[in-house]
Amino acid sequence: MTQHKIILDTDPGIDDAMAVFFAFQSPHIDVLGLTTVYGNVPVSMSAQNALRLCDIAQQHDVPVTQGVGMPWVGPESTYAHFVHGDNGFGDIAVADPTRELDPRSSAQFIVDTVKANPGEVTLVAVGPLGNLALALRLCPELPSLVKQVYIMGGAAFVKGNVTPVAEANIWNDAHAAEIVFGASWPLTMFGLDVTYDIPFAPDFVDILADQHPVMGGFVRDASQFYMDFYSQGLPERVCYFHDAFPLAYLIQPDLFEFVTGYARVGTGELDRGQTVIALPGSTMSPLWTEAQQVHVATKVDHARLTQLFIDTYGQRG
Amino acid sequence: MTQHKIILDTDPGIDDAMAVFFAFQSPHIDVLGLTTVYGNVPVSMSAQNALRLCDIAQQHDVPVTQGVGMPWVGPESTYAHFVHGDNGFGDIAVADPTRELDPRSSAQFIVDTVKANPGEVTLVAVGPLGNLALALRLCPELPSLVKQVYIMGGAAFVKGNVTPVAEANIWNDAHAAEIVFGASWPLTMFGLDVTYDIPFAPDFVDILADQHPVMGGFVRDASQFYMDFYSQGLPERVCYFHDAFPLAYLIQPDLFEFVTGYARVGTGELDRGQTVIALPGSTMSPLWTEAQQVHVATKVDHARLTQLFIDTYGQRG
Repeated sequence: MTQHKIILDTDPGIDDAMAVFFAFQSPHIDVLGLTTVYGNVPVSMSAQNALRLCDIAQQHDVPVTQGVGMPWVGPESTYAHFVHGDNGFGDIAVADPTRELDPRSSAQFIVDTVKANPGEVTLVAVGPLGNLALALRLCPELPSLVKQVYIMGGAAFVKGNVTPVAEANIWNDAHAAEIVFGASWPLTMFGLDVTYDIPFAPDFVDILADQHPVMGGFVRDASQFYMDFYSQGLPERVCYFHDAFPLAYLIQPDLFEFVTGYARVGTGELDRGQTVIALPGSTMSPLWTEAQQVHVATKVDHARLTQLFIDTYGQRG
Repeated sequence: MTQHKIILDTDPGIDDAMAVFFAFQSPHIDVLGLTTVYGNVPVSMSAQNALRLCDIAQQHDVPVTQGVGMPWVGPESTYAHFVHGDNGFGDIAVADPTRELDPRSSAQFIVDTVKANPGEVTLVAVGPLGNLALALRLCPELPSLVKQVYIMGGAAFVKGNVTPVAEANIWNDAHAAEIVFGASWPLTMFGLDVTYDIPFAPDFVDILADQHPVMGGFVRDASQFYMDFYSQGLPERVCYFHDAFPLAYLIQPDLFEFVTGYARVGTGELDRGQTVIALPGSTMSPLWTEAQQVHVATKVDHARLTQLFIDTYGQRG
């Protein structure tokens, strides 16, 4: 059985929690570490929350590091407590972590771990991209050493969720994203094109809780606040589990359809965080034709993805 | 019968020629003047070409002015000779103009004419928007004096034609467009959302030529070069008559569907000329919620629009 070695870069966060547990539960995924970044919450809370998730999952050997706490270029960080609650977990009670962080920076941990496993590590980044950008600066040869990079972020052919053109993770650190999108590694983007396409209803998190009372139960309870946010003005309660999508692709690649295009990330006033993808042949502008190409997920099989989440939550302990 | 007083701001250009003749032929449109701007061709050629179109149409009393020849803010102008030919008319032979330009600038002509017809003039701009921006600077009360502003330009919910995000007219003078979109006048945008939706085949221009051998014949002949450009790599010969769309709306408003949204125009490196439309309620960003609202044409009835063009070319002389 193929087991994919990953480093999961995260800012937990409710959909992050759902994704972290999904990765832990999958027999096809070997989580070499959780690296953390500011985003949904401040980075110190991200790091402590990642430790809390490890405790809940009884994953006592997975290293957890604290990473960058501010954007590559100002203005200062913003957080999404209105989406994820004051504690990042929908304000349900969560015990304090039972262990300490790995003392390294997230970027250094990424560099060390990739160098120790050359050609084998998939970086899965589901928050703002500061840690990956910093790792590229610490180790310019990193692109030749990683296996691949999957990110949850961006909005290629659909509108944004922070501005009309920008998705939150990319908007939160647009300059870092431009560095990460511009690096010569195989990058696949799972943006709002696919993640905002599947609303999950209360019965889904109820089923996760049935499948795994501890982890699924945590996701169900934490998701109530999250559903309050996403359901504003809607007739039904729903939420979105953005961060789990790249992990699902690792396990079942035929769930998704993709296009490949030249990618740039806007860093101006209006286009901050916009991910503009130009399909080859669609433009003569060197702003794009001289840019890196990335893979962009454009379609996903709803039913099979949902089933994969459910089945995986029922795996192992 | 309602007759709409318009000033047609243009950069002829082949689809401009088709639009100018359409306006002249319509009994519902009273062309108070042709104002010209750089764009498809340099402004001196735009102005002389507008005079040539008046000669062909035997419109000897319509004033023609020369307007701005460069963008509001650099870089310097670019032209689309590869689309419209060296002479702007697909390199078919066209006689020199038989009369002179009105000596005023296009912007001054717009201000004078609107002031002489308060509340009655529709500005129809089918090129870059420098003349309208300059008119706003010459006469800050202009928005309260014009009836409405229609522009051919932009790409609201579809990709651009110069960059992945920008349409040519807006890209050509993004700063002027931001001024025009930001003014407090009722602005309706006919962009690639509708104009790039209807390819016109050779039989269409043949029919125009049957309807009016002089004007339609000119459009048919000039369009051969234009079709060469648009048909590259396609199995069939087609072209697009972008500039006639706002004029069609004047005559038959129920041809189109619209949305209304907050509008901003990008002026950065990547987003130069991007028209970002945010529907009310779709964003909390003050970059949009504090912006002017504009109407955006999103759908058009192909069959009826085509018939309107054909019928109008058969009107009068």
